[in-house]
Amino acid sequence: MRVMILGGDGYLGWPQAAYLSQRGYDVAVFDNQARRHFDLKHSIDSLLPIRHLHQRVERWHQLTGKTITVYHGDITHYDALAKAITEFAPEALVHFAEQRSAPFSMIDREHAFYTQYNNVLGTLNVMYAIKDIVPDCHLVKLGTMGEYGTPNIDIEEGFIEITHKGRKDVLPFPKQPGSFYHLTKVHDSHNIQFGCRIWGMRATDLNQGIVYGAGTYETALDADLATRFDYDQVYGTALNRFCIQAAIGYPLTVYGSGGQTRGYINIKDTVRCIELAIESVPAAGEYRVFNQVTEWYSINDIAEKVQRVGGQMGLDVQAHQIPNPRVESENHYYNVVHTKLLDLGLEPHLLNDEEIEGMIRLALQHRDRIDERLIKPTVNWRSTANQVTQAAVAQIEPA
Amino acid sequence: MRVMILGGDGYLGWPQAAYLSQRGYDVAVFDNQARRHFDLKHSIDSLLPIRHLHQRVERWHQLTGKTITVYHGDITHYDALAKAITEFAPEALVHFAEQRSAPFSMIDREHAFYTQYNNVLGTLNVMYAIKDIVPDCHLVKLGTMGEYGTPNIDIEEGFIEITHKGRKDVLPFPKQPGSFYHLTKVHDSHNIQFGCRIWGMRATDLNQGIVYGAGTYETALDADLATRFDYDQVYGTALNRFCIQAAIGYPLTVYGSGGQTRGYINIKDTVRCIELAIESVPAAGEYRVFNQVTEWYSINDIAEKVQRVGGQMGLDVQAHQIPNPRVESENHYYNVVHTKLLDLGLEPHLLNDEEIEGMIRLALQHRDRIDERLIKPTVNWRSTANQVTQAAVAQIEPA
Repeated sequence: MRVMILGGDGYLGWPQAAYLSQRGYDVAVFDNQARRHFDLKHSIDSLLPIRHLHQRVERWHQLTGKTITVYHGDITHYDALAKAITEFAPEALVHFAEQRSAPFSMIDREHAFYTQYNNVLGTLNVMYAIKDIVPDCHLVKLGTMGEYGTPNIDIEEGFIEITHKGRKDVLPFPKQPGSFYHLTKVHDSHNIQFGCRIWGMRATDLNQGIVYGAGTYETALDADLATRFDYDQVYGTALNRFCIQAAIGYPLTVYGSGGQTRGYINIKDTVRCIELAIESVPAAGEYRVFNQVTEWYSINDIAEKVQRVGGQMGLDVQAHQIPNPRVESENHYYNVVHTKLLDLGLEPHLLNDEEIEGMIRLALQHRDRIDERLIKPTVNWRSTANQVTQAAVAQIEPA
Repeated sequence: MRVMILGGDGYLGWPQAAYLSQRGYDVAVFDNQARRHFDLKHSIDSLLPIRHLHQRVERWHQLTGKTITVYHGDITHYDALAKAITEFAPEALVHFAEQRSAPFSMIDREHAFYTQYNNVLGTLNVMYAIKDIVPDCHLVKLGTMGEYGTPNIDIEEGFIEITHKGRKDVLPFPKQPGSFYHLTKVHDSHNIQFGCRIWGMRATDLNQGIVYGAGTYETALDADLATRFDYDQVYGTALNRFCIQAAIGYPLTVYGSGGQTRGYINIKDTVRCIELAIESVPAAGEYRVFNQVTEWYSINDIAEKVQRVGGQMGLDVQAHQIPNPRVESENHYYNVVHTKLLDLGLEPHLLNDEEIEGMIRLALQHRDRIDERLIKPTVNWRSTANQVTQAAVAQIEPA
């Protein structure tokens, strides 16, 4: 099966490309190098050194004999997107090509604008490319569990049956996203659901939890195949960042009182979930939502795990509560329905001590590549940001 | 009170400006002339001749002694928007500056892209301009009843209490919009609700029904103050278009079986509703939703009314069902809660025979300005559009 991965050079996109290539799929990646451009602009590096996309693909070919096709392009440029899709004629399109950082989207107007432009308008282009060029192609779209926010009821998989004043309907689950980035995923979900309804498009919307892990079995085959690993305030996700902090003796930065609970998923499960989605093709016109999450923890739970494992490794790991730069509930109900991917055959890699220890060891190994100034949160959700973040003074100009 | 009307030269924006000016508000309009540009491009005219914005404003001043300030600009150009808002320092911003036609948004990729760019990104700019320049300014945003779609339960005003698996929460009402245009209003609603939550912005989101009527008491004061009146397939709303069709002996174009039920509101009520919203300022951080609708009818109800009134006027009015160019349910439940504006004091102008007769008379009076070729629907929601609309062959190139 021909699978094109939009954003196939990123933290998740590249492991996904390698994983599917290994499993026998005919894989192409389409990428605009936006994430690497941010690094260049701000002099930031991945914890793990990463190769250029062409080098990765060449090394992959040397090691496995398999070919991954490369397209350079931007989904907001329709002509480039249409050309690649016409040429490769994908049967599934896996869409990672979005600006994926909540803090990035909250830096200022320009970053919010860029995020909503790239994600919402880019995805609109992807939808039209499918409709006009490969109408049977299955769109596998990365969403986020953050679309739901933290309602005081169980979070269902995309839809909820509502009984109201004696009548009943199954309706899209109400969304309460927490950043201009998360909002784009909600907008995408609405647009895509509509595309399925009017054009008969096939789509799977994967509401993914926070991904952790330094790579997959494929990216571990060779140092040249490594995927990026971010620990900075803008792109680093909570567990990854905590492991780095533990390694360098930097107190874990717990935002606020730490009761914020979120879904998590191992990167090894992410690549498998997407394969499961690809293999189970929706009917024409079908819009499916899977909650791509295997477990959930509060920030305090995560900090305690990292402290404990770090302690076992002989490290002195402190956790500090700092003023929360985000506007979010720190004490709330959280329970997620996530049976659809399990029903398709997912066998989760749950978060255990070995996983955490592995990440801390990786950070120790690459200690000299860590820039502590990138960790403190300087991007604030509030309009009165300066009052709130005085305690966490800006160390970098984030964009 | 200083009120700026974004899109203040449009069908609703101009009557709103005149109405508020007449009632003693200090009014500015900000407009990019996008709707008039569409006329120029396609050689289309409003049924009623309309004056240029500056001529309207000058005539208004001659007749009433009141001044309306004019800014030419586009909300997607932040600098122009910020300059106008800095200079005028509005206390309320009424936001009509969106591409407002569902068929326009469905013409092709370019029109969908333009619509979502203009509306979603433009509104994001408006939100940042408020936050950064006039943080206490009240955003009065025009949404649409079409955001809700046609759920099988009563439509509440923005939020619904949901009991689910023994737990309870009040959540945003689930949305099922029916075009790329309607989708932008849903996206805006999510963005604005978030802005209120994180920045303490004050906003009223007005989910308006389909507006009918050829003007208000103010625009009727003088021919030079007339607002535009559209009857074409792209911009003409159902009741307005039917009245024109009745006048010229063109069968009423009922899309599909005609059971589609929608909320309606008289243009005279629109201008009053917005005044009521402005006068009742939300608290800092408050996001309110009002359903700006006074009654609802199916397309068949509307066609029957126009047939009956036309008959009383001696006209032979036929109604023809044509293949529905839209993808929508033609047989559904519809019941709308709309008490908040009534509670604030709205006294509705309900749809009566005099109103319909007035519009038909207007069309008879301007018979020579009507271009029949503009009426047939050529814009189709489906990807297989040509099969569906063979019966309603394209007479114009719609964009």
